[in-house]
Amino acid sequence: MVCPNRYDWKRLEQFATAIFVRAGVSTRDAETVARSLVHADLRGVHSHGLARMPVYVERISGGLIDFSKAPVILRKAGATAVVDGMNHLGAVVGEAALQTAIEIAGKNGTAIVGVRCSNHFGACSYYAEQAIQKGMILFVMSNAPQTMAPTGGIRPFFGSNPIAAGIPAGSAPPFLLDMATTVAARGKIALARKKGEAIPKGWAIDERGRDTTDPAEALRGALLPIGGAKGYGIAMFVDILCGLLAGAGYGPGVHSLYDNDEHPQNVGHFFWALQIESFMPLPLFQQRMDQYIQQIKAEPKAEGREEILIPGEWEWRTAKERQVSGVPLPDTVVCELAALGSTWGVELEDARIQ
Amino acid sequence: MVCPNRYDWKRLEQFATAIFVRAGVSTRDAETVARSLVHADLRGVHSHGLARMPVYVERISGGLIDFSKAPVILRKAGATAVVDGMNHLGAVVGEAALQTAIEIAGKNGTAIVGVRCSNHFGACSYYAEQAIQKGMILFVMSNAPQTMAPTGGIRPFFGSNPIAAGIPAGSAPPFLLDMATTVAARGKIALARKKGEAIPKGWAIDERGRDTTDPAEALRGALLPIGGAKGYGIAMFVDILCGLLAGAGYGPGVHSLYDNDEHPQNVGHFFWALQIESFMPLPLFQQRMDQYIQQIKAEPKAEGREEILIPGEWEWRTAKERQVSGVPLPDTVVCELAALGSTWGVELEDARIQ
Ligand SMILES: NC(=O)c1ccc[n+]([C@@H]2O[C@H](COP(=O)([O-])OP(=O)(O)OC[C@H]3O[C@@H](n4cnc5c(N)ncnc54)[C@H](O)[C@@H]3O)[C@@H](O)[C@H]2O)c1
Ligand SMILES: NC(=O)c1ccc[n+]([C@@H]2O[C@H](COP(=O)([O-])OP(=O)(O)OC[C@H]3O[C@@H](n4cnc5c(N)ncnc54)[C@H](O)[C@@H]3O)[C@@H](O)[C@H]2O)c1
Repeated sequence: MVCPNRYDWKRLEQFATAIFVRAGVSTRDAETVARSLVHADLRGVHSHGLARMPVYVERISGGLIDFSKAPVILRKAGATAVVDGMNHLGAVVGEAALQTAIEIAGKNGTAIVGVRCSNHFGACSYYAEQAIQKGMILFVMSNAPQTMAPTGGIRPFFGSNPIAAGIPAGSAPPFLLDMATTVAARGKIALARKKGEAIPKGWAIDERGRDTTDPAEALRGALLPIGGAKGYGIAMFVDILCGLLAGAGYGPGVHSLYDNDEHPQNVGHFFWALQIESFMPLPLFQQRMDQYIQQIKAEPKAEGREEILIPGEWEWRTAKERQVSGVPLPDTVVCELAALGSTWGVELEDARIQ
Repeated sequence: MVCPNRYDWKRLEQFATAIFVRAGVSTRDAETVARSLVHADLRGVHSHGLARMPVYVERISGGLIDFSKAPVILRKAGATAVVDGMNHLGAVVGEAALQTAIEIAGKNGTAIVGVRCSNHFGACSYYAEQAIQKGMILFVMSNAPQTMAPTGGIRPFFGSNPIAAGIPAGSAPPFLLDMATTVAARGKIALARKKGEAIPKGWAIDERGRDTTDPAEALRGALLPIGGAKGYGIAMFVDILCGLLAGAGYGPGVHSLYDNDEHPQNVGHFFWALQIESFMPLPLFQQRMDQYIQQIKAEPKAEGREEILIPGEWEWRTAKERQVSGVPLPDTVVCELAALGSTWGVELEDARIQ
């Protein structure tokens, strides 16, 4: 039995690819971006899935993303490299940086790739998952437009600067931590305001720096980092590596994806790849990972908890299930995509599982 | 005017060195450990300062730390290395790993050094500060004995697995984030129990996995990670790199520093060094860091806040002040050190500023 509101992930990729191609992007690049977006929807991370298509296309049409030049490797030295994204689509830039990192790590055991002049590159897990498939460990981060205040401040200065780490296992699902360094996403607060609901304490502060549960006040204030000053420190670390060191924007120099029809985003990323074989044979590592994961999952559970999850496990299971029985897109996303499709003459309906 | 309860940091180092030497450690190694401990006291991080001396000495005397063999580089491949600590004192092992990382990064732009068979290595900032002085970026982590439960669990499985990052600035104090991945240290909860005070919600859970503000219940339960499942993910990431990948203990395989007279600790560390010159000239980087730090500090402040601090800034200022006017050791530490000194025939009084 197939649920009528589900979409076939392969056909969703084709839908997104077709639109990007009509907007002028090469087939290969269009496929990359489509894959990165559908990857997130498969994993149940709809905030970073096809919901981002409309704004990507809008920025392409507005000339704020430039897909005429491929990302280039500016400099390679030892186990490090700098990639200039040339203001291409973020996922295309991220993909180029990832391949560079994997190649360098294959030769040197590890690789550091700093990336400048990029755009929103979607969910970090897209890159981590590919590294995992190559038997590598990847630590990847990105800076983002300002939403988070430094501890003691009141105004957004840092972005929700995500960090992700992917580590292969054997038969167990891999370890895939992928997280914003803010407690909650701004989108969740906007949603609460729409619904007229309060937000939990600890998500955000108001314009004077006081804790608030009022989403409207929170949106005028700033998001809070995880763990207080510790998360502020992590977000600043990410901003320094991705922005200042890689030569991208940082702090106010990272421009908004939305409400900004003037500036290219100038996002920065930082990729750190690590070859397991430099430390031990991959099969041995995988076997130990499986045992370790089993051991954690076998720990006694808290009251009312049936299971202990490994980071990324829920998303991994969700993707496996959705590859078989389809992706249930949120209604708002369906509406937006259908409208986008009709603008570009591509049918979303064709991707629906009948 | 000099406060009578302050101690001269150089003479504190001599005091600690003398005791380690009498316990059989070589002068050079004794000096390293003494420096790492006094470093923490200078920075106001007394939990990782000389307060740890008694247990270090106890483990030396009990034969649980072996200082007869120097740490060795087991393997070097490309930009990576594995160091076997040979169960030496943690700071001696950490120092050897740091020097290896700095040397490799000098040649390859970056370096990864995994460390096995080590012991408690003190405050991570000790290593980060040295890398900063060499104009390098260091990201360092360590696993630790079990105190933190995985999300959904109730029993300690991971340690407070600290992560630290050091990044040089120019004339501004450097960025030095150094943090446990638990919300609070177990020591703070033990102290609250002693004083009969409640602990804040969010620090720990009881034996059934429920939030608790009762320190006694918390000590029977487990510490909580920062940011909920996000911090659990970070702690697990640290454990995998430091333990599973580097070949040290992990999870229950990391043995306690206290209440354990059977097993060497088998702690693992992971050092990642990055040469700034692979990306841009160091002076340019430092100048940008200074501007960036100034910009953050100039952000508008929350109500009741006079200043926005950069991670590590308070500790940096504290150390500068204490280098001049002495280290005010907590009373309990003074008592313990005086007793230790009299056992080994070394006078703590000699370090006191008269
Ligand atoms: N490109 C950008 O600018 C940008 C900015 C911010 C976030 N993002 C993306 O947003 C996405 C969502 O981020 P988020 O912070 O909201 O994610 P989240 O809070 O849903 O999950 C964070 C991590 O914690 C893990 N996790 C959650 N609950 C768990 C549990 N009970 N047990 C074990 N693990 C658990 C998840 O598997 C995930 O790895 C990510 O893909 C991130 O890359 C991107
Ligand atoms: N070796 C081990 O096994 C082990 C285990 C756990 C912790 N530790 C050490 O314990 C020490 C203390 O850790 P902690 O987590 O309790 O530290 P903490 O919570 O006091 O500080 C964490 C970090 O946040 C920064 N910070 C705090 N408040 C700030 C503010 N208002 N603005 C800007 N930055 C701010 C600090 O400078 C520091 O870098 C560290 O040195 C750590 O390495 C060691």
